[in-house]
Amino acid sequence: MRICIIGFGSVGQGVAQVFNMKRDRIKQDYDLDLQLVAVADSKGAVISEEGINPALLLETKQNTGRVSDYPEYGVNGVTGMDLLDTVEYDCLVEVTPTNICDGEPARSHMLKAMNTGRNVVTSNKGPLALGFTELRDTAQDNNVMFKYEASVGGAMPIINFAQETLSGCEIESIYGILNGTTNYILSRMAKEGSSYNQTLNEAQEMNIAETNPTQDVEGEDAACKVVILANSIMNMNVTYNDVMVKGISQITPESIQLAKKEGYLIKLIGEVSHDSLEVSPRLVNEGSPFAVEGTLNVATLKTDLADDVTVVGKGAGSIETASAILSDIISISKSMI
Amino acid sequence: MRICIIGFGSVGQGVAQVFNMKRDRIKQDYDLDLQLVAVADSKGAVISEEGINPALLLETKQNTGRVSDYPEYGVNGVTGMDLLDTVEYDCLVEVTPTNICDGEPARSHMLKAMNTGRNVVTSNKGPLALGFTELRDTAQDNNVMFKYEASVGGAMPIINFAQETLSGCEIESIYGILNGTTNYILSRMAKEGSSYNQTLNEAQEMNIAETNPTQDVEGEDAACKVVILANSIMNMNVTYNDVMVKGISQITPESIQLAKKEGYLIKLIGEVSHDSLEVSPRLVNEGSPFAVEGTLNVATLKTDLADDVTVVGKGAGSIETASAILSDIISISKSMI
Repeated sequence: MRICIIGFGSVGQGVAQVFNMKRDRIKQDYDLDLQLVAVADSKGAVISEEGINPALLLETKQNTGRVSDYPEYGVNGVTGMDLLDTVEYDCLVEVTPTNICDGEPARSHMLKAMNTGRNVVTSNKGPLALGFTELRDTAQDNNVMFKYEASVGGAMPIINFAQETLSGCEIESIYGILNGTTNYILSRMAKEGSSYNQTLNEAQEMNIAETNPTQDVEGEDAACKVVILANSIMNMNVTYNDVMVKGISQITPESIQLAKKEGYLIKLIGEVSHDSLEVSPRLVNEGSPFAVEGTLNVATLKTDLADDVTVVGKGAGSIETASAILSDIISISKSMI
Repeated sequence: MRICIIGFGSVGQGVAQVFNMKRDRIKQDYDLDLQLVAVADSKGAVISEEGINPALLLETKQNTGRVSDYPEYGVNGVTGMDLLDTVEYDCLVEVTPTNICDGEPARSHMLKAMNTGRNVVTSNKGPLALGFTELRDTAQDNNVMFKYEASVGGAMPIINFAQETLSGCEIESIYGILNGTTNYILSRMAKEGSSYNQTLNEAQEMNIAETNPTQDVEGEDAACKVVILANSIMNMNVTYNDVMVKGISQITPESIQLAKKEGYLIKLIGEVSHDSLEVSPRLVNEGSPFAVEGTLNVATLKTDLADDVTVVGKGAGSIETASAILSDIISISKSMI
């Protein structure tokens, strides 16, 4: 399978690392040869029909900050869209930064790939939260696969889990901790009685929260995931603006301690059901699967037959997210046989 | 798909109920027509090429205790093996009671079905814990599918999850609460400071523990599951006797309270790795996914790329277990296209 990666930040580099680590194994186990034929970052690209060496590409990017410095095959100034016009490939891995204003340039990359008969795998929340239906329909119209497990909860594989592993059940609602940064902050506040601002500062120092933490702490990131889960698992047709969103910045140590005395914890919960799309701080029981600490993500699927089924996993991380992308690629290759 | 069910206790009846509830939906969603052509219990069978009505079958069983009293098509004294000689079918659902001495008669049923070119779905731990390799190899030799999600943790779907959803990862070890009865007993002891015997009695009164609780409380049930997970997910070749087993009957309320003071809970843990096959009571952290209460099952897969991924679900229940069987049947039907 000839693969084109657009975006070479943390996730894109994770994908290259995973290809480097697992290419032989994947060939052996799934009879699937992962061939990297083109990679673009914001400054240029590298294109090679014979295949790009992932280790050399990672080294190049680390040394100069540009994939276009890859020996012999680098090209300066080429954009993602240029690449999709030039290269012969089978599957686009779209991992440019999430843009929740208009979903670009990821949206255009994915539509272009689909409209020219290529499969698409992405971790990009923006275009999925804003225009999921357009993307899904375009994939269907062109008879290509569109996979996006990595867009929700990195290494907490919930979408394929619901669609494949639980195929005998209908999913009635989804309830989850969909953001690792806020889970970290709330867990620390519960454990240490510290204030929101103090704990946020600590999380920023540890690179768990970003310098501008708004997307995480105000629930916007979790709301994007609510939209993706609603559209993909529950067959709804909703966008970001349909979600009621309340973040965690107003939560006091006192309210957390009060909850704790009664056997509860406060967590930022995303809820997806036909009656409600919401992100808000809620009480969860101390003995429940939602009592997880640190940056873990967790989601419970309420099903018609199997009652509640819960998945817990790392919500972020370069290699972790890349592993979800790899599983999606393997699933595409199985459907191509 | 023409389906033959052998065994019509709690799980078999759950399967009939699920067929009754979901047949139309499954037809619509997966273009799969589930046709029940034969069902046997320990006293006889019902056979009909035109299809057995699941609702009428359940009613018959409830009223007289025998599927052979099904109007017109019932046959007294027919055994499961007789059935497999007589009936034309595509998939055997083997759900007779678990026998961990020799795995019979389930083992013979499954081998016969496979050797005559039929797919097999089962919830039966016995033959899988004793002779997994024989069954897997027989299925492979005959080019039929062999699915057994329901044999471990009813509605905690771990096997298909590891093999399909996490296909990009290698599983390095598995660590889980694989028995609901013992989790219930230990959770109650932790919460109420009650003794093991008193709590067991309560659990028996609530039908959570059986009158003879040995298989559960001495860890035998969990050990069977350890074997199934080792063989199916980790590609090992082990049997029941390879597992070190220690149950929960020696645990005192004092040790539980002592653990609690330090932020730990005691749980009966099954561990599967290339170095260790073990069932024993261990300490788990209060803030971890293993702190779940009640009869829940939980299993963590340690992976090479996605770090730890955890699944939590109901370990038992008639409909819950049947839902895992249905998902396996759907997965077989997809591979038949």
